[in-house]
Amino acid sequence: MIVPAGFSLNGIHCGIKKEKEDLGIICGDSLCRAAGVFTKNANVSYSVALSRKNIEHPIKAVIANSGNANCFSHCRGLKDTEDVISKLAGELGVKKENILIASTGIIGRQLPKDKIIKGLPLLLGEISGEHSRSREGIKKFAQSIQTTDTFEKISCASAGGINILGIAKGAGMICPDMATLLGFIMTDARVSAAELKRILKEAAADSFNSITVDGCMSTNDTLFILSSGKVTVAAKELADFSSAVKRVCLNLAKMIIKDAEGATKFVEIEVRGAASKREAKTGGMFIANSTLFKCALYGANPNWGRIISALGHAGIKVKDNAAVKFTSLKEKEIKVTVDLKRGGFKHSVYTSDLTPQYVKINAEYS
Amino acid sequence: MIVPAGFSLNGIHCGIKKEKEDLGIICGDSLCRAAGVFTKNANVSYSVALSRKNIEHPIKAVIANSGNANCFSHCRGLKDTEDVISKLAGELGVKKENILIASTGIIGRQLPKDKIIKGLPLLLGEISGEHSRSREGIKKFAQSIQTTDTFEKISCASAGGINILGIAKGAGMICPDMATLLGFIMTDARVSAAELKRILKEAAADSFNSITVDGCMSTNDTLFILSSGKVTVAAKELADFSSAVKRVCLNLAKMIIKDAEGATKFVEIEVRGAASKREAKTGGMFIANSTLFKCALYGANPNWGRIISALGHAGIKVKDNAAVKFTSLKEKEIKVTVDLKRGGFKHSVYTSDLTPQYVKINAEYS
Repeated sequence: MIVPAGFSLNGIHCGIKKEKEDLGIICGDSLCRAAGVFTKNANVSYSVALSRKNIEHPIKAVIANSGNANCFSHCRGLKDTEDVISKLAGELGVKKENILIASTGIIGRQLPKDKIIKGLPLLLGEISGEHSRSREGIKKFAQSIQTTDTFEKISCASAGGINILGIAKGAGMICPDMATLLGFIMTDARVSAAELKRILKEAAADSFNSITVDGCMSTNDTLFILSSGKVTVAAKELADFSSAVKRVCLNLAKMIIKDAEGATKFVEIEVRGAASKREAKTGGMFIANSTLFKCALYGANPNWGRIISALGHAGIKVKDNAAVKFTSLKEKEIKVTVDLKRGGFKHSVYTSDLTPQYVKINAEYS
Repeated sequence: MIVPAGFSLNGIHCGIKKEKEDLGIICGDSLCRAAGVFTKNANVSYSVALSRKNIEHPIKAVIANSGNANCFSHCRGLKDTEDVISKLAGELGVKKENILIASTGIIGRQLPKDKIIKGLPLLLGEISGEHSRSREGIKKFAQSIQTTDTFEKISCASAGGINILGIAKGAGMICPDMATLLGFIMTDARVSAAELKRILKEAAADSFNSITVDGCMSTNDTLFILSSGKVTVAAKELADFSSAVKRVCLNLAKMIIKDAEGATKFVEIEVRGAASKREAKTGGMFIANSTLFKCALYGANPNWGRIISALGHAGIKVKDNAAVKFTSLKEKEIKVTVDLKRGGFKHSVYTSDLTPQYVKINAEYS
């Protein structure tokens, strides 16, 4: 687990939650190139609203909190968020547009900005130390963004002399575009802002936007990539770098599904023989979001009628010679392959089963 | 409970299921005008496929079965269905296009056409008797279409000298357009085929297409209206007739939600202050289909953040002054009112909570 050159990380408890870490930072030694992918929900958190604006600027730091979604809470919500960002920018000697923010937690509660601002000295005080560039910093940041997560989600990759580190959270309200999922990718690779944007978008499409836990779209999902530019990337190495970013994103996305609330199974649904990539993905997501099919997975019940029904709901006419294959439903990891026999495209999506435990967790969570 | 003039009903056990009634008939004394509303699923049962064609013709009888969806079962599926219809048409002395068929049950199993055909004499033998025009016939038919239903869904209305009788089934896989929901409306009113069609479509929009249990769209949902034409309707009485049909449909739709699989709550979600009727309905359905919100209802947890998130998923931007109101969540019947304060339109949809019991029922059902 290596922190790419040019970054420091930290996580602390500032009092948003009762005990656990709830405030984290990723800080660049200098300004970084950045790109972001955000929820498509029409109602977004103040954090998403501000970060969407700032993402076009060079970025010095990302501040993240858990325990509060910073969404739909108060007419002062946007102003409070700006205050936090301004304060942090001041401490770091940059402009407020050089800061990104990401939040996760309950919707509708006012952000405790005083607690956050009061926590900044502690958060930043340790940021220059050696542990903020080591496994310890990574773990602290990863813990600070957790909500109902039961383990830290961290993935690394290297390609040539380049390092990539990814950290994510998310265990429920997961559906593309992308649900309460926060993802942070750091790299020392020097890549243009336009390339970073393209690579992140492609990586998200096949990873964070190809998973679903419950079909609910969050107000807060955010994925950032930051590049410190410490390591030069030759044009011919760009494809390797792009693949490495995709690998990191897919690893993190799969970890989120493995940690899905109440889930007992990790399920890959591969739709192949589709008339287009889009058809394969849409079909897979409709199957993955079918409440009835998810119940069948829980019951280890190969109810492929629910697959036909879900595909039809997606507008996909299933031919008589289409084939559905299950690996053993008794296992913890399952693969469902649906061959539409309509064309040459395929796509995999990842989901979990729906369990009584999921219902209980989300009946009580507040 | 009155059978409108010109109809007979019956239901028998023909052996599709182990013990319970599984084959029903609604028979006109003579040919009836008919209209239908069907699922929008791209994959439909052979019963839906045939009934869609026949609905344009005068109708002598509707045959319905439970225990088998007659869908995606076998390359002979359509032919088998035609054989059943032809046999029944022969027995009744009409053409095969004068018959409608509706099926509900498991997808992917071949229709046991021999059992059905063998059951026809018993089904028809009693059809001329007095009890087929009484409560007994109604109950037998209502029972013959049940799957996981726990009670019979029957509703009547009168307007002037006109009688309307509605019978429905459905307890899961319920979502508009309309899910495994079968509905049969009979009336003695003499109304043109075009009027019948319009009235049924409007009635379905605000009833069967405004309910959801689990967001899953069935391959089989079917709603028929048959008119024996025994009672003349004056032009000025048409609106009363239309209201009565709507009332019957809404009553039946609510019964379906009250019988939703595993549900502990009946929930009306009224979205008001919407910019259009469509926005009100879309918003309501996204809320009603939010897995997270349904869990919150089960937990009696007024988690309105999940409402904001669901509305945003539907593309509806929620204003700061929007208001969400809950009646007591401890009750069995709940009303949630969402005032968007964007305009003058409103719409109610009906749903149930998501419970561990729902998951268990659907993990095991096969």
